[in-house]
Parts: sequence; structure tokens; C-alpha cells
Amino acid sequence: MLLILGLLGGASAQPQAAPTLNLMPWPANVQQGSGALKIDESFRVTFTGHTESRLDRAGQRFMERLHKQTGILFTNLGGDTAKATLVVHTDKASKQIQELGEDESYTLEVTPQGAKLNAANPLGVLRGLQTFLQLVDVSPDGFEAPAVSIKDQPRFPWRGLMIDSSRHFTPLDVLKRNLDGMEAVKLNVFHWHISDNQGFRAESKKFPKLQGAGSEGMYYTQEEIRDVIAYARDRGLRVVPEFDMPGHSTSWLAGYPEFASGPGPFSVDQGWGVMDPAMDPTNEKLYKFLDGFIGEMAKLFPDHYFHIGGDEVNGKAWDANPKIQEFKKAHNLKTNEELQAYFSGRVQKLVNKHGKATIGWDEIFVSGAPKDIVIHSWRGPKSLAAAAKQGYQGILSNGYYIDLMWSAARHYAVDPLGGDAAALSPEEQKRVLGGEATMWSEYVNWENIDSRIWPRTAAIAERFWSPQSVTDVNSMYSRLEDASQKLEWTGLTHKTYYRKMLQRIAGAATADEFSALKTLVDVLEPVKNYTREETATYHPTNFTPLNRVVDTASPESDVARHFDNAVTAFVSGSCKDTAASAHLRTWLLKWQANDAALQPLEQRSSFVKEVAINSQDLSAIAGIGLAALDAIAKGTSLTDEEKTQATARIADANKGKAQLLLIPAATIQKLVDAAASGGACTAKN
Amino acid sequence: MLLILGLLGGASAQPQAAPTLNLMPWPANVQQGSGALKIDESFRVTFTGHTESRLDRAGQRFMERLHKQTGILFTNLGGDTAKATLVVHTDKASKQIQELGEDESYTLEVTPQGAKLNAANPLGVLRGLQTFLQLVDVSPDGFEAPAVSIKDQPRFPWRGLMIDSSRHFTPLDVLKRNLDGMEAVKLNVFHWHISDNQGFRAESKKFPKLQGAGSEGMYYTQEEIRDVIAYARDRGLRVVPEFDMPGHSTSWLAGYPEFASGPGPFSVDQGWGVMDPAMDPTNEKLYKFLDGFIGEMAKLFPDHYFHIGGDEVNGKAWDANPKIQEFKKAHNLKTNEELQAYFSGRVQKLVNKHGKATIGWDEIFVSGAPKDIVIHSWRGPKSLAAAAKQGYQGILSNGYYIDLMWSAARHYAVDPLGGDAAALSPEEQKRVLGGEATMWSEYVNWENIDSRIWPRTAAIAERFWSPQSVTDVNSMYSRLEDASQKLEWTGLTHKTYYRKMLQRIAGAATADEFSALKTLVDVLEPVKNYTREETATYHPTNFTPLNRVVDTASPESDVARHFDNAVTAFVSGSCKDTAASAHLRTWLLKWQANDAALQPLEQRSSFVKEVAINSQDLSAIAGIGLAALDAIAKGTSLTDEEKTQATARIADANKGKAQLLLIPAATIQKLVDAAASGGACTAKN
Repeated sequence: MLLILGLLGGASAQPQAAPTLNLMPWPANVQQGSGALKIDESFRVTFTGHTESRLDRAGQRFMERLHKQTGILFTNLGGDTAKATLVVHTDKASKQIQELGEDESYTLEVTPQGAKLNAANPLGVLRGLQTFLQLVDVSPDGFEAPAVSIKDQPRFPWRGLMIDSSRHFTPLDVLKRNLDGMEAVKLNVFHWHISDNQGFRAESKKFPKLQGAGSEGMYYTQEEIRDVIAYARDRGLRVVPEFDMPGHSTSWLAGYPEFASGPGPFSVDQGWGVMDPAMDPTNEKLYKFLDGFIGEMAKLFPDHYFHIGGDEVNGKAWDANPKIQEFKKAHNLKTNEELQAYFSGRVQKLVNKHGKATIGWDEIFVSGAPKDIVIHSWRGPKSLAAAAKQGYQGILSNGYYIDLMWSAARHYAVDPLGGDAAALSPEEQKRVLGGEATMWSEYVNWENIDSRIWPRTAAIAERFWSPQSVTDVNSMYSRLEDASQKLEWTGLTHKTYYRKMLQRIAGAATADEFSALKTLVDVLEPVKNYTREETATYHPTNFTPLNRVVDTASPESDVARHFDNAVTAFVSGSCKDTAASAHLRTWLLKWQANDAALQPLEQRSSFVKEVAINSQDLSAIAGIGLAALDAIAKGTSLTDEEKTQATARIADANKGKAQLLLIPAATIQKLVDAAASGGACTAKN
Repeated sequence: MLLILGLLGGASAQPQAAPTLNLMPWPANVQQGSGALKIDESFRVTFTGHTESRLDRAGQRFMERLHKQTGILFTNLGGDTAKATLVVHTDKASKQIQELGEDESYTLEVTPQGAKLNAANPLGVLRGLQTFLQLVDVSPDGFEAPAVSIKDQPRFPWRGLMIDSSRHFTPLDVLKRNLDGMEAVKLNVFHWHISDNQGFRAESKKFPKLQGAGSEGMYYTQEEIRDVIAYARDRGLRVVPEFDMPGHSTSWLAGYPEFASGPGPFSVDQGWGVMDPAMDPTNEKLYKFLDGFIGEMAKLFPDHYFHIGGDEVNGKAWDANPKIQEFKKAHNLKTNEELQAYFSGRVQKLVNKHGKATIGWDEIFVSGAPKDIVIHSWRGPKSLAAAAKQGYQGILSNGYYIDLMWSAARHYAVDPLGGDAAALSPEEQKRVLGGEATMWSEYVNWENIDSRIWPRTAAIAERFWSPQSVTDVNSMYSRLEDASQKLEWTGLTHKTYYRKMLQRIAGAATADEFSALKTLVDVLEPVKNYTREETATYHPTNFTPLNRVVDTASPESDVARHFDNAVTAFVSGSCKDTAASAHLRTWLLKWQANDAALQPLEQRSSFVKEVAINSQDLSAIAGIGLAALDAIAKGTSLTDEEKTQATARIADANKGKAQLLLIPAATIQKLVDAAASGGACTAKN
């Protein structure tokens, strides 16, 4: 069922450091041709071969996207193949319910005379249409798609994005635009984390107290869920629901406290963290309930896989319940892990009974587990490799936690077949099905969620789709910036939200004040990992407003990255490039002067006041950077004392403040090091 | 029915040059209090008095807007009045069908302890809720609304926006977000220009060939129209449909050529201008058809007024038809104007027969017309005043043609009671009901229409609502910038479109290239009036892509206005303010260097290439401005020759190129004049 890896990853697969094609994910095989296909109002796309209404809709959607990307009104859809600019040929239907490992390959030929997209089934067509859209760009002669020959298929068959709709409810339109984004970067699994302590978001008709007591009114009706599933199918996405159990289940217990391990009543959690409540695995009635519930949901969600969660049971509720302790003894279950394995085994049987296979977090991987389960690893490649060795399939999410605010490069460097998995046999490696980016939603809502998912998830999608050899970070970033812009044409708002949220923070600011605020926030990033929880001065909940600078700043500063690239190039060029030095000076002068420009706004907006410290730091380290440049220009060195002082000030600025990191700090340290006696500049000047 | 004018326009009505309250339109009476009402998650709004579902929805919408404006999640809607932060009291219901001149007054009291909004009916409540939303802004202590006492009502009872959905079809979501914008600035009439030569956009069930042959498939079903009307009613907006006849009617004749004055067949026009085809006023069957059609539409559109257009019949089709010439003779109709008057008279009777009153463009105002008609003046105040003198009611659109790309200030200076109307008696002045901004859609589509309507229409809305004495342009602009930002929270995209369209023009540009493009386009405006048609090098149609810089540039450059204000202040301060001089220099240096930064992109994007000439001009005149500043700083004068050369270069730059105007040109001329011998600077230095 799995595609053969590696065979097609030849020389042409690796994009150049300065690629001329803005494709993401990079295809398995690309051969550039000469010339380009002009895209004007005469453009016509026609579909041949197998037909179905999904392909009609794909054609409509394609034309609409092309209109948005070019501003040209296209009216030629279908009709005479001989007249078509792009002929799309589909051999045959795909499966009625999209399956893991279905063929997604396609070939795309673009010449100045026309284009041909061929695929075995509609999935490949969907993938190829997105590639075509990525090729279209402005040129000296209007819009065009460069001549190219592409033969493409994914490296991994499971390429997912998880969205946590429990901690913050995800409105339907927000979900849908993210499914559009997933289609654009060739992901194929929407993992819907639809229940957790903070909310049970799916309607059960059999057990209406689940959403009734567990959602504060914010849940998806079954009709809405079917609508999402149909929307996903149109885009070649499987929908895998996750009903997290036996922990992360407070929202279930709000309506059904009789299945809890401890005494109720329960109400949904509003804060974050690992909570004590858990289902009672010793309660036979629980399994009867789950039989009914899983049966209902198995009908609602057509996908073959059913995610039962299984993560982070802290065992406190079990330890506190004498009845459960007795049960453990009676059944020779020595640890809570063994008790959970007992529970997982029972639930897996129910999942199988209703025609599905189980997927769950690392915790469900215990000896004796049935071989059809899929291990979803939040713990890491080691755990995934161990499972694969024992014959279990798995997917990786460790390293793809996009809520942790890592850089795209850091996620990009994580490979599902990296770490211990690299040492697996080819047969074992096939069991590593791919991975999923996970958007846990403690600090995201309708407004900033897109910016936390995109564009970084496009880089992760490339990791899942493209040959393993595609690893050039500069190429990735260059293509990612273009992909990010194009993704907004799908309806995503990851770039748009930024100005609007900044505007709210700035209130009725003058243009100069607003510009000063933007200059500052452009180089700030939210603190990484779980530092935000650790540094919160209040108890954050899902009602806490997400309107501060930390909620607004991009997870990754483009400006700071460009500055770092420029400094790195300058320093590695022996600091001799005076134009480069002048360019760096422009940045630093702007930052140095910025704090003064921001002062009036700090006095008027509490949200700006909160980042006054960051603004002072930016001015200060910009001054240090300028002094370093001055020293370099004069051919003098910073003294040891100057270096020590500068380093101390930069280190202070480099601390998280107001839950934000000042990214240029580390870069300016590079300038200081280079300017100091024996540094890159002084050594060679 | 009309409100008494002027009585409440006391001293407090005039906003200060630097207003502390960002209200637009400025209320009739404002008294600022001390302190402010804090807006946090405990905020609760409760409605008392008369209740209806429209008010419930208004409350929901209000809470949603407040959430978007603050980022705070509000959950307290309704409930205990004693606990409410804002108590909204409605005396009684408004009319089932909103009427011209219905009471829209309200009072709003905000104190640090709470707020009260009182209105006679739901219309006043809608107006007052928008005022409250405008008051909420960021502060040193989170969000708050300043203490204030407002007693407000409109100056004119007819305050409209016309949208032309014929030349470019307006998608429903685009229409709706503009209705939200209208509500935000207290307009009350949506004039729907729904048929014209280029498209018949309303579904007729009686005469389905109207939309069948006349819309190219782009029309509103009756269900959609009812939905728009309900949406508008919720927002206190009347919907006045316009079915333009007997000219501007090619789209009718496409399906019903038998009613034309000349031989068919006809198909919808795709280009612009005054077209020859017209209905045949001598054809009795036409009136039978119109009887049926108007009867059907009179049921669909509940408003009392029915707009029959009537503009711009060039008479060629009538002159060319011997039968029509005979009819004129037989009926003693000497001119085509008299023939049209005959037609209008017949149609007005049909409109009356179906229970409505007629509104139409200037042309329907002929002697003997019934007194219940409303004259919609595109010709100007003179025509409006003449009508008023003869007892006719009228509204003004001349001066409010927002498709002409005028500045907000220019529209703002036009008063429905200006010009000849100023000399009318108070009784006659009452017949001037107000006005309408008109969004003719030759060059707007779903993407840029918001930017052509907003924010300038907010300034026009203030002209219609606020006391006549509210005329300070600086105050208007200051409040307009804030209003513009807040309007985007309604869902409007007039600011967002800009970056996205620029991005498309820039393609995969680097950050520096994009920034250079933005710097240029920030100071360009589309050519004014009908210059765009006159300078088109091709025949524009409704299929012509609207993706060029001229489609992207804002109708009014904020940057250029700020620069002009700064130069004007500098020059009028005898050019002695060195900080101001340095500020001007920052602008000019950036512009001077910009052309070089834009070069690479000009080579890659045909859309950027098109504005290369504007970019060169900007650099050149920035250099001239810098030389002028240098001369001023040195205390020398520009020589006559230098001045002549500079003036010639600026004049050249000041010409429309690529259908764009370089707005700082005129401002830099001010600097040159000031720096030249005998100018403001040299004279006093």
C-alpha cells in the first residue's frame, strides 16, 4: 500500500538554493523547460477521462483561485479539449472513502503551447492542480507558468494537520479555510481533536449530555460535521476524529459523571494542563456506553481510522479510588499503565467491532496491542522506532508541535525517519506512515489561529511530501515566503490578521506611531515551548482575551531572519562589504530611533505599554550593533571591556520579556563578536 | 415628517480641530464628561422596553463587533438590568416597513459607572449602538469608552449609498459587508442600481428572459433579494431598487427586443458609455409589460419608493424610427425630452398603481410631473433647487460620485443645501431630503469595491447626518482615519485588499522590493473624473482585469496628505522648524532612493513596469524637494532658473501617467516656491 521511497529522489529533486520555481512542497521530479505558458483571459481548462462531480467542483475552485491569483476573469471551463490551455486527464475513480496509501501521483507538463495534467485518480488531479497554481506568477509579460515537466508523488502516505477544537472552539469558516490551506500544500489528513477537558465539540444524538453539558453551547452538529467531511473529501483530505480517553475527558464527565473514577459533579475545564479526572476503566457500564458512542461516531465519520487519544493520564483519580485499586489487584494489573492498557484493549475491540482501526497517542502502544493500530507519537522518534520494530505502524508529531512557536527551519529539520527510525530496516521504515503538525489551541482563536498554522505548516508538509533529500533551508524559506502569500488567496488570514490586531493594539494611533509599533513587533516572537504558561501572571483560560502583542507577533520573524542572514553574510565576508554594512546600518538606525517614536503610544495603550521594555531593549541593542559597525568601519576592535558590557546588555535583551523574545539580539551578538578583538572582522581586517 | 433642522446645532456640535472623540458622523450634540467606562469581560448589555427579534439580533451583532474591536470574549447578553453595563431602552416599535423620515434619534449617556442608550424606536437604537462602538478604544488601562452625553438625530432623512450591481455584478457577501458599513456610519438607504445596459441582475418570475438573456447568469434570485432586504432592515436601511428605463436598458432588450425602439437582436453591453438602444415609448405593449413587471417588483421590494432611472437617453434610436417620429407629431411632442416626459408620466402612473412613489434621475423632472416623485439629481444643486421651488422633493448625488476618485474633503465640502439650494426658503429646503453617494461600477469588482466606497463614504455620511456647521476638514480626516480602521471590523476589506493586490502585482518579490513598490503606490492615486476612460489604450469592458496599479492605488493617498500637511505647516512657520525640516527630509530621501530599489521588480513584473515612469518621477521630484530644503537650510534662495527648471519637472511629474497621479508633486512645488527668491522661506529668513 505504501509508495516506494527514495527511488525517484534523484538529482533533479533537490531545489536550488535560489530556486526559480516557487513550488512547495517540492515535487519528487522537476525538469525545467524553456519558455512559459501565458495565462490570460483565453485560458481554458478541460477535464477528460473519468468524470465525477468532485472533479467538476475542483475545476470551479481551480478557476476561482486562478482568478484571485491573477485578477483575470476566466470564463472558459470545460468544452473543446483541442482549445484547452490545460487538459486534465483522470484515469479512474478513487476509493469511495479515501484510504491510507491511495495513489496521489500525477504528472504535469507545461510548455509555451499548453499544459497537461495526468493522474491515476482524482486525488492526483487535486495535487497537480495545486502545483499548477503555484507555478503561475507575474512576469514581464503579464501572468505565466514556466515550462516544466513534473512527475510527482508523496514520500509518506499520512500527512496530517491536527486542529484542537476543544480548548478553543474553531468556527466552521475558520476550519474550512484551513482545509483549503491543507489542500494547497498537499496534506491529506485532517485530524480533528474534537473532545478534551475543555469541551466536547461533537453532537451525539445517543448521548446528548456529552455536548449538552460539555460544550458551553459551542459544538458541531452532525450535519455540520458531515459538511466538513464532504468539504475535506472534495480536497482529498481524510478526516480522522479524536475522542480523547480515558484522560483529557472532563467534558465527557460533565454530562456523564457516573463514568468517572472520582466523585463528581464535573464541569468543563477552562484552564490548561494535565487534569486529574479520568474515566473509570473498571466500570463495565462505561464499555457499554462507549460501544454505543463509538458505534454512533463510526457511522458519522467514514474514515477507517478512529483516534482514541489515550495521552497523559496522571493516575491520581485511579489511585484515589479503592474500588479501582481492588480491580487492579484482582486482575493482576501492577501499574496504572497496565490498567490503561487494559482500557485501551477493551476500547480497541469496540473500535474494531464497528469496523474501524484504532489510532492513539504513544500510551496505547503496549505489549499485546493488536497489530492494526497506529501509534501517534508525541514522545518522539525513539518511541516510533520501537513500535515499528515490533511491527506497529506509526506517525510522528513530536517535532511538529506548531503551538510551541518554533521556527519553520526547526520543524523542517525533523524527519519521521530521523533519529532511531533512521536505523530501521526498509521493511520497518515502511511502517512509519508520516506525521502530523499539531495545533493545540490554548492560545489560538478564530483570529490568530491561521498565523500559528501558516506558513510554517507548509514547510512541514514539504517534509512529509518531498524526497528526503530536499533539505536546503534557504531554498525552503525562499519558497515559503511565496507560498505564504499564495496561501492567503485560499481565504486564509495569517498575514491579514497581523495588521488588524496591531491596529487594535494601537487604537487611534498616528501613522508614525503605528509604524513604530509595527517595527517593534516585526522583530518579536512569542516565547517558545511552554514558557508562556510558566510565565503567566494570571491563570489563563479559554476566556482570556488573546489580544496582546504576544498573541499578535508572528511565531517567526521574517525581518529578524533577513537581518540575521545579512549579518551572517557580512561577517563571513570578512566584514569588507561596505554596501552590506550600510544596509545593516539602515536597519539598526531605524531600531535605535524606534523607542522614541513609540513613546506617545506607550502612554495611551496598555497593550503597547506592556512591550515598552522590549522597545527599550531593541533601541539599546541596535545602538550596540551600530557601535560594533563603527568599530569595524574604523578598523579598530571593541575592547574586552566593551565586549563584556555589550554582551551583558544583549544577554539581558535576549531574555523573554512580556512573554516575547527579541530576535535580533542573538544576531547583534554576532556583530559584537566579529568586532571584538580576534573576531571575524578584526582578525582579518 | 422631516426633522427640524438647525435647532440643535449649537456650539457643542462642532468637533474640535483635534477631537478627543473619534465619532463619525459627529453627533448633533456632544458633551464630554470626565472619566471613562471600563470595557472588560464583565461587560453586559441589556435591552428594556419594547422588544422584537430585530433588537435581539442587533444585540448579538453588537456583542460580536465589540469582541472584534477589543479581542475580549463577552458572554453577558441580556439578563439582569441592574447588573448591566449598558442598558438599552426602546420605547416602541418602528414601522413595519421603514419609512422616509422615521425617527432615528437617540440619547447616549456614558459614565464611569455605566451607560444608557434611549431611543423612541429600534432605528434610534441601531444608530446609538454604532456610536457606542465608536467610543470604545484602547486606553492606558485596557479598553474603555469615555464619559459622554450625546443627544443625536440626523440632519437629513434620506442618506444613501447607491451600488451599481449591473456593470460589475456585486456578490452577495460583498453587498452585505457594505450594508454593515452603511449601518456603521448611520446611512439609511441602500439604492440598488440593479439593471443597466451591462446586466439585468434581478430575477423576474413573470418575465424570466430579463435575467435569462440579460445577465450572463449573474443575477440575484428573488430569495436572495429578500435576504438582502431583510439584512438591510435589520440594520435600519431601506432598499430602493432602480430599474433604469427607457435608456440604459440594453439588458432588458436582450430578452425582449420587441420593446426596443430600433431593430434587434440585442445582447448585453460589456463596455461603458451612453448607449443608443432605448425602449419604444410609443409601444402600448411596453406599458402592459411594465405594468406586470413593476407589479411583480413592487411586491418584492417593500420600500415605498421605486427608482425608474430615466437618465441619459441620447435619442438616437427614437430619431431613427419613423413610427416614433409619427407618434411625436400625432401627440404634439416636440422634442425627445417631451417624448421621455410622456414615457415617464405613463410609468409613474404604473408605479402609483402598484402603491409606490417614483424616484428618478433629473430627467424625470418635467412640468406636470406628479408631486409625489423624488428627483435624484446627478446634474447638481441648481436642478435640485429648481425642483424644490416647484414643490418637488429631491436628493443630491452630484458631488457624491465616489467613482470619480475625488478626495474625501472634496465630497465633504458638497452640501445638499449648498449652491442654489442655500437660497431656498426653509419650507423649500425641507424638500431637499438628503443625498446619496453613488458607486458606479465600471472599475470596481468584488476585490476593490470596498476601497472605492470606504472610508470616503463615511465623510459623506457625516455630511448627511451631522449639523451643517460641522465642516472642519482636519477634524474630519482625523476622525476618518479612525473610522476607516474600525470599519474593517464590520468585515469590510478596504484596507486589506491593498496589500493583497500589491502582493499579486509584486509576485515573488523580496521584502525590499515589495516595500519599494508600496512606497511608490502609497503616493499614487487613480486619475480623476472620467480621465481613465479617455486615456484607455484599449476598450475596457466588464471582463477587463482590474489588477493593475490604477485598480489598487487608493482613491486618496493618506501618506501624500500627511506630507502636504507637514510641508504646509513648515512653510507657514517661515521654514524655521529644523525638526520639521528633518522630518520632511526623511520622506524625500526615501522617495529619492526608491526608484533604484524598485528596478529589479520593474524588470520582472509587467504591472510594475507600467508604473516605472511614476517611480522615476517620484525620485526626481524628491530630489528637487531636497534641493529646496538644502537651499532653505543654507539660507540661500533658488535662482529663477533653478525655480523654472524645477517647476517644469514637477509639472511634468504632475501629469497623469499610467492613469495615475503622483500626489506629492503639487506639495513639492510648494517647497520650491517657498525656497525661491521672495518665497515664504526666503522672504523671512
